[in-house]
Amino acid sequence: MVDLVTFGETMLRLSPPGQERVETADQYDVHVAGAESNVAVAAQRLGLDSTWVSKLPDSPPGRKVATELRSHGVDTDVVWDDADTGRVGTYYLEQGDVPRGNDVIYDRSGASVTTATVDELPTGLLEETAAFHTSGITPALSERLEATTADLLAAADEAGATTSLDVNYRSKLWTPAEAAEVLTDLFPNVDVLLTAKRDAENLFGLSGPASEMAVELTDEYGFDVTVVTQGAEGAVAATPDEQFDRPAYEASDAHPVGSGDSFVGGFLSQYVEGAPIPRALSWGAATAALKRSVPGDIAVLSSDEVERVMQGDSTEIDR
Amino acid sequence: MVDLVTFGETMLRLSPPGQERVETADQYDVHVAGAESNVAVAAQRLGLDSTWVSKLPDSPPGRKVATELRSHGVDTDVVWDDADTGRVGTYYLEQGDVPRGNDVIYDRSGASVTTATVDELPTGLLEETAAFHTSGITPALSERLEATTADLLAAADEAGATTSLDVNYRSKLWTPAEAAEVLTDLFPNVDVLLTAKRDAENLFGLSGPASEMAVELTDEYGFDVTVVTQGAEGAVAATPDEQFDRPAYEASDAHPVGSGDSFVGGFLSQYVEGAPIPRALSWGAATAALKRSVPGDIAVLSSDEVERVMQGDSTEIDR
Amino acid sequence: MVDLVTFGETMLRLSPPGQERVETADQYDVHVAGAESNVAVAAQRLGLDSTWVSKLPDSPPGRKVATELRSHGVDTDVVWDDADTGRVGTYYLEQGDVPRGNDVIYDRSGASVTTATVDELPTGLLEETAAFHTSGITPALSERLEATTADLLAAADEAGATTSLDVNYRSKLWTPAEAAEVLTDLFPNVDVLLTAKRDAENLFGLSGPASEMAVELTDEYGFDVTVVTQGAEGAVAATPDEQFDRPAYEASDAHPVGSGDSFVGGFLSQYVEGAPIPRALSWGAATAALKRSVPGDIAVLSSDEVERVMQGDSTEIDR
Amino acid sequence: MVDLVTFGETMLRLSPPGQERVETADQYDVHVAGAESNVAVAAQRLGLDSTWVSKLPDSPPGRKVATELRSHGVDTDVVWDDADTGRVGTYYLEQGDVPRGNDVIYDRSGASVTTATVDELPTGLLEETAAFHTSGITPALSERLEATTADLLAAADEAGATTSLDVNYRSKLWTPAEAAEVLTDLFPNVDVLLTAKRDAENLFGLSGPASEMAVELTDEYGFDVTVVTQGAEGAVAATPDEQFDRPAYEASDAHPVGSGDSFVGGFLSQYVEGAPIPRALSWGAATAALKRSVPGDIAVLSSDEVERVMQGDSTEIDR
Amino acid sequence: MVDLVTFGETMLRLSPPGQERVETADQYDVHVAGAESNVAVAAQRLGLDSTWVSKLPDSPPGRKVATELRSHGVDTDVVWDDADTGRVGTYYLEQGDVPRGNDVIYDRSGASVTTATVDELPTGLLEETAAFHTSGITPALSERLEATTADLLAAADEAGATTSLDVNYRSKLWTPAEAAEVLTDLFPNVDVLLTAKRDAENLFGLSGPASEMAVELTDEYGFDVTVVTQGAEGAVAATPDEQFDRPAYEASDAHPVGSGDSFVGGFLSQYVEGAPIPRALSWGAATAALKRSVPGDIAVLSSDEVERVMQGDSTEIDR
Amino acid sequence: MVDLVTFGETMLRLSPPGQERVETADQYDVHVAGAESNVAVAAQRLGLDSTWVSKLPDSPPGRKVATELRSHGVDTDVVWDDADTGRVGTYYLEQGDVPRGNDVIYDRSGASVTTATVDELPTGLLEETAAFHTSGITPALSERLEATTADLLAAADEAGATTSLDVNYRSKLWTPAEAAEVLTDLFPNVDVLLTAKRDAENLFGLSGPASEMAVELTDEYGFDVTVVTQGAEGAVAATPDEQFDRPAYEASDAHPVGSGDSFVGGFLSQYVEGAPIPRALSWGAATAALKRSVPGDIAVLSSDEVERVMQGDSTEIDR
Repeated sequence: MVDLVTFGETMLRLSPPGQERVETADQYDVHVAGAESNVAVAAQRLGLDSTWVSKLPDSPPGRKVATELRSHGVDTDVVWDDADTGRVGTYYLEQGDVPRGNDVIYDRSGASVTTATVDELPTGLLEETAAFHTSGITPALSERLEATTADLLAAADEAGATTSLDVNYRSKLWTPAEAAEVLTDLFPNVDVLLTAKRDAENLFGLSGPASEMAVELTDEYGFDVTVVTQGAEGAVAATPDEQFDRPAYEASDAHPVGSGDSFVGGFLSQYVEGAPIPRALSWGAATAALKRSVPGDIAVLSSDEVERVMQGDSTEIDR
Repeated sequence: MVDLVTFGETMLRLSPPGQERVETADQYDVHVAGAESNVAVAAQRLGLDSTWVSKLPDSPPGRKVATELRSHGVDTDVVWDDADTGRVGTYYLEQGDVPRGNDVIYDRSGASVTTATVDELPTGLLEETAAFHTSGITPALSERLEATTADLLAAADEAGATTSLDVNYRSKLWTPAEAAEVLTDLFPNVDVLLTAKRDAENLFGLSGPASEMAVELTDEYGFDVTVVTQGAEGAVAATPDEQFDRPAYEASDAHPVGSGDSFVGGFLSQYVEGAPIPRALSWGAATAALKRSVPGDIAVLSSDEVERVMQGDSTEIDR
Repeated sequence: MVDLVTFGETMLRLSPPGQERVETADQYDVHVAGAESNVAVAAQRLGLDSTWVSKLPDSPPGRKVATELRSHGVDTDVVWDDADTGRVGTYYLEQGDVPRGNDVIYDRSGASVTTATVDELPTGLLEETAAFHTSGITPALSERLEATTADLLAAADEAGATTSLDVNYRSKLWTPAEAAEVLTDLFPNVDVLLTAKRDAENLFGLSGPASEMAVELTDEYGFDVTVVTQGAEGAVAATPDEQFDRPAYEASDAHPVGSGDSFVGGFLSQYVEGAPIPRALSWGAATAALKRSVPGDIAVLSSDEVERVMQGDSTEIDR
Repeated sequence: MVDLVTFGETMLRLSPPGQERVETADQYDVHVAGAESNVAVAAQRLGLDSTWVSKLPDSPPGRKVATELRSHGVDTDVVWDDADTGRVGTYYLEQGDVPRGNDVIYDRSGASVTTATVDELPTGLLEETAAFHTSGITPALSERLEATTADLLAAADEAGATTSLDVNYRSKLWTPAEAAEVLTDLFPNVDVLLTAKRDAENLFGLSGPASEMAVELTDEYGFDVTVVTQGAEGAVAATPDEQFDRPAYEASDAHPVGSGDSFVGGFLSQYVEGAPIPRALSWGAATAALKRSVPGDIAVLSSDEVERVMQGDSTEIDR
Repeated sequence: MVDLVTFGETMLRLSPPGQERVETADQYDVHVAGAESNVAVAAQRLGLDSTWVSKLPDSPPGRKVATELRSHGVDTDVVWDDADTGRVGTYYLEQGDVPRGNDVIYDRSGASVTTATVDELPTGLLEETAAFHTSGITPALSERLEATTADLLAAADEAGATTSLDVNYRSKLWTPAEAAEVLTDLFPNVDVLLTAKRDAENLFGLSGPASEMAVELTDEYGFDVTVVTQGAEGAVAATPDEQFDRPAYEASDAHPVGSGDSFVGGFLSQYVEGAPIPRALSWGAATAALKRSVPGDIAVLSSDEVERVMQGDSTEIDR
Repeated sequence: MVDLVTFGETMLRLSPPGQERVETADQYDVHVAGAESNVAVAAQRLGLDSTWVSKLPDSPPGRKVATELRSHGVDTDVVWDDADTGRVGTYYLEQGDVPRGNDVIYDRSGASVTTATVDELPTGLLEETAAFHTSGITPALSERLEATTADLLAAADEAGATTSLDVNYRSKLWTPAEAAEVLTDLFPNVDVLLTAKRDAENLFGLSGPASEMAVELTDEYGFDVTVVTQGAEGAVAATPDEQFDRPAYEASDAHPVGSGDSFVGGFLSQYVEGAPIPRALSWGAATAALKRSVPGDIAVLSSDEVERVMQGDSTEIDR
């Protein structure tokens, strides 16, 4: 038995050091980056026994993804694609202060994972896991993956796993209308929905305070719990019976990429273990806050650190 | 025909990484840096067909300057000096947070450009350009260059080009009185004057609000337009008939060096094309703001980005 | 009029520093790399006025290619593809000492250039150039490019330009038989053929000494000249009337990638100017030898250095 | 005669670049770091002729400590321990933005200095110095060093040197009660006590404003002067007759490690020369503020810079 | 069931980049390095399911060791020591060309692993593994570890695992006589002995050709097989009945550290699977040769690459 | 009393990492480099108490020179020039494998040291030193320095110090005829002449074997000893009565710059102490050989290492 299985695409992120630009930099930092593997790493580091399932080319860049994830203790159950015809998706990340901001340039089309079928994936794992997680990015990547995502959620649901979906809308992959149509089709097999407030507005036409959105989504789609995150304003959740509200922790703006996934990983690390929702929300918020001080997409952190943030420990040097 | 010709010294800037100190660093980042070539690059990237004219030694450090400028699309029309007797000026830049601040140590005396004469420079270009630009640094570098700058401005004015001068006072090169005397001698051949408010005070004894200074300078010297910049408080301009005022855009403090030149490049990219002055001021301000997030002296940016700043687009990651 | 137009794909090369491995490195050095742009840069640096024609996405990685080539003085005449749907091909290069050797992993399929048609390319340039060059890689990249390459060679030939083709067989792109079939179809419009001895064997079934191969190819396909390179053993050439043989210069093994293209650039820099073939062969050999001491794919060097190698100047420090 | 002798442990500090983590970084920046050598360097750079006394292994890491200190002009009078059996203590420093903060992991037990006896140390120096300084870290490192520290303070006091002690409580080395007991035993031979307000509370059970603490300590232990520092709120001092209060200077948060030692070095650079206490406090505060913009533990700065901070010079670029 | 369990110390290796010196470098590359974990990684990468057993402090440097090993697929079964009182051993490696050579400075005394007892280690694993491996370094580290090593070998032998010992004499840890005494006491529980020829001479007083040494050791101590390695001259092996001899593969001198461990890992990857000894020797030799082109202590390589070396494939770029 | 005083120019050397080119590199490594300070550092590290005398601007780049030299234990007795008008000479070093070789581009004209007069220099030191050393570079730098060098040699000779001169001909500074004329004027005050064989040929018209040259120079100019170095072929020496010949030690070609100065430093470290000439030659040769494995201009090494080279110790890792 494992605690958590996640499925999705993981890419190599190529980012010029500091505030350098892609056009003029001579070196790129390389990070392993994928919404669902980010969740798996955060959850694993916070105590869940996690496995990441995907498809990668059997080449050095492909193996790099698995090597990095394994280093954090995540099990990787990968279908190995042909080294010459497959590819790992990449993305370029430019980081810049105000008013430039961060810029993402995807080069992910045709990645091996976009051809993954439910038949070749290790679906047996779904029988042995407490929870299954994916994000709205996955079905957006190819028609094949749209079907595969649906099949996996159905199989996990059927097997009794807690299923969770992070909406994670990506405007460079599809329109809000396309996303809404595909995702709502998946909702019957989803137990836990997580969404940014902004996505709830754009995709599902909701408005008003986040707490109302959470209630509406829970009511309309019958989720066990809906979590709506709103950045520095914290996160709310609604079950069929209750509502919860937790503030965000103060955090740097240095490394925001991946903090949303860290929230999910932190939340699931508690929720899957049966912790009360307010506690799960706090773990999500503290994990996300910590991530913002860690370069790369991945939450290199520990339970101790998360607890220290929740206790409001000062950041003075302890020596 | 080209749109813009600029003339001046370009140096190699040697700066320890991050906040390291010149005295103890083991590596220096190398950037190509010169007020007038900075203007040419910004203008070229924002749409003007630009040429930079200067004199450099025919050695690897000399060629480095031309190589870098060409990469941004600027044409380089360079008089090549003897590799052994000529030199490229350099300057050391130390970057430090408050209260240390940034420190500049010049090592520019004797650079090849200080020997440039109007006879050896490609003055034919002045017949074929819409605009000619230089800064108050150039005549400060040597007596020879004082004469050459005067000759070039006169020739450009004669040929019907729009001539612009950025006052750019450098206290390590001359006194305010020396600067004022030399520059006012150049003013009869200058159409567009750009100056920091601080320089207008120190050199020309002006006081009061920037807008009044602009009016006074335009009135006294007969400029087509005078632009007075005042950092975070924005910029003003005065023509013989009108006055304009534009705020600055919010910007990081990370890489301020070169933002003044970026303002000029942004302003000229519109002014030379005949755009209204308020629009040119806004382009100047947005280009300067963006530059502050880009390492080095040079504005590695695009028209799209400038327009996004002017539209006040959020700096959230677009993905 | 320009001296040389080249056409082909240029990629971003991602290589871990030193002998690090792709799987475990945290940073990749980024180089701009393409057989035909390598030729254009070498030729430009050695005196030919060169233009590189291709298709790139209008994105930071796409612009990076043009920015780098321009820095070396090459004109870039690029069709700009959509930033979101186009892509720049990349390849990973691992460098390792004996017995590991160097390893190349291509990630180039679907690059914008593979969709380039003769109609969108600036074919007018072919009317104004002394020479046109491409390599056997180009028609291997897509069916579309097979047709486009044929059309460009035909148009250049028709316009009276000297046309040259470097066989440059890539086993990861096609089989020898496929390559032979496509390339021989192009030969009627090729004036100068350059090939590695190994490719002459594998593709055209030739054997025996390189000099015989050169004669056979010239005789069979009617080339003005055929050049057969054999690495450290030098290069030979055959015209319909004469044969030539030149040794290689002693060279480091540090940075071999791109040295073949440097040979072509060095050869063409003389041949296009009408120099005798032995001189062109020597320039090719010296340029290739020098390239092997320069990191990256591109021959950052000068005519002076090439001449010094041909004169057998010692490598003692000159100071 | 020298102006200042300091005694204590100096370590190699290993810190991942930027905000990287020890667990995942591939490189560590190496800095030489020790409370008392930090004081010696700051004092030397601000004009005192300083000598650092300690014990190090005669190995490359041991010599690295002396090499670095000498570079700043500090004389090093070191007992050289066996290269194979001795060691240099190290510590790992992780730097992270809010909410992570900085983290210190000591690996200093068993360092050569912990075996230093008064007999092997160059105690003759104490006869020839105007001042002697150590910190509360030193007697915490080993029983041997507890005795050695007491002996040195007694000898220095006896020889007529001004003796100073910076409390510098380290919770990873001992408890407040242990520290208080050992340090108060040293107080009879201490002329100048410096302590953080927080340490005054934890170790000596004081409360109320810092100024009262300074008075109480001076009164109870008979110090010539007690200095109590309170970070951004400035520092206070009390002599038997007078009290002084000086604000802190605005400073970056970039490199706080070592700023406390810089305060001491700045203070002593004036106090030892007989300057009035308010002036010494200001020098301490300005030195500490400047240090916060300098990477590493060591105050790479000059008297000119300290004076500029005290004069409130702007941090605008001077060029 | 696992295929291989190894036990020993793993350190952090701190090495200045390139040929820099420890005394003057500002950065150290950090590598995870330990004879037995090196063996586990090589074996795992070549197909054996491997677990590394040890004791580490539960601190960032301690976790770094496990994180790195896990990334290569090795299971880590670690006793976690107290973060404050435990430590990870380190060593400094200086790399220099002739005549300087490489230099190792150990700082490993007092590491957490030196306190490991058989009671706290996961000895249950020995019941479930096909093979157990350690090296002569382990019992040299402390008296405690001398006992623990003996206990583990006895337990593994008892449980029916194939036990192997690499002599790996370290002159900085003990004398040849001490080593010989302790190791020969372990031999009754050792099935496979691996030793450098030089160690066989110094510790066991053998002379003559390596093949005779292998026979003598096998005969005297009753090993199933003795392997004697002799660097560039290859390796020999002797079973009670047969002798084998295999040459080394040509290899770079760039990264020799860890190549001996790679030999053992390559050898065991075959031997444990029941392959014939000549094949195991060849795998050992090819793995060691490849390692020499890989920075760090760890054999980042694959079975494919090992096979390519054994087939004598050229190191020409395959593209 | 000190053992050795040296006088000359020390520059900042700017070199692109590895084999990168000045024209395209983004970072330069910075090293402190000067013939006479190189000698002082080598001699100091090998046991002589050494002082380097020169003139530098009181600016960060100027102080960097002194900071680096002090770190190696050399005393720096520097006349501090005005920070704004003075400068530190620099040179660019490009390092390239065969056939490119290393290339030096000087930017040293106008350095502060070129204005140094004997009146401002600390000539009192010459009364208290056992030896004084300079090189033929110094009088080549300016007419002022030609006089100053002559004055210093005369004063040192007068004071009874052993005076030594390394010919060190630099073709970028003067012609052989100019050098010969100036240097022979200095010879009456020189006790020890060191020269490369190549310089002996070019400047003094000598031919034949090095040993004959040494004899001729000693005879003609009355030196106590003349040393003629011939790179990999070793070095010879002649006193009025005897001749000596010592081979070079095998050495890498990695970092040749500064190895000649290291020879001098190694030789003087023995000669000044009264060691026999063959021993001094061997120390020179071993120091030079070791230097070739150390990046930068400076011999970061120890007496132990020099002795190990002379004993022919293997370069196997000692661990």
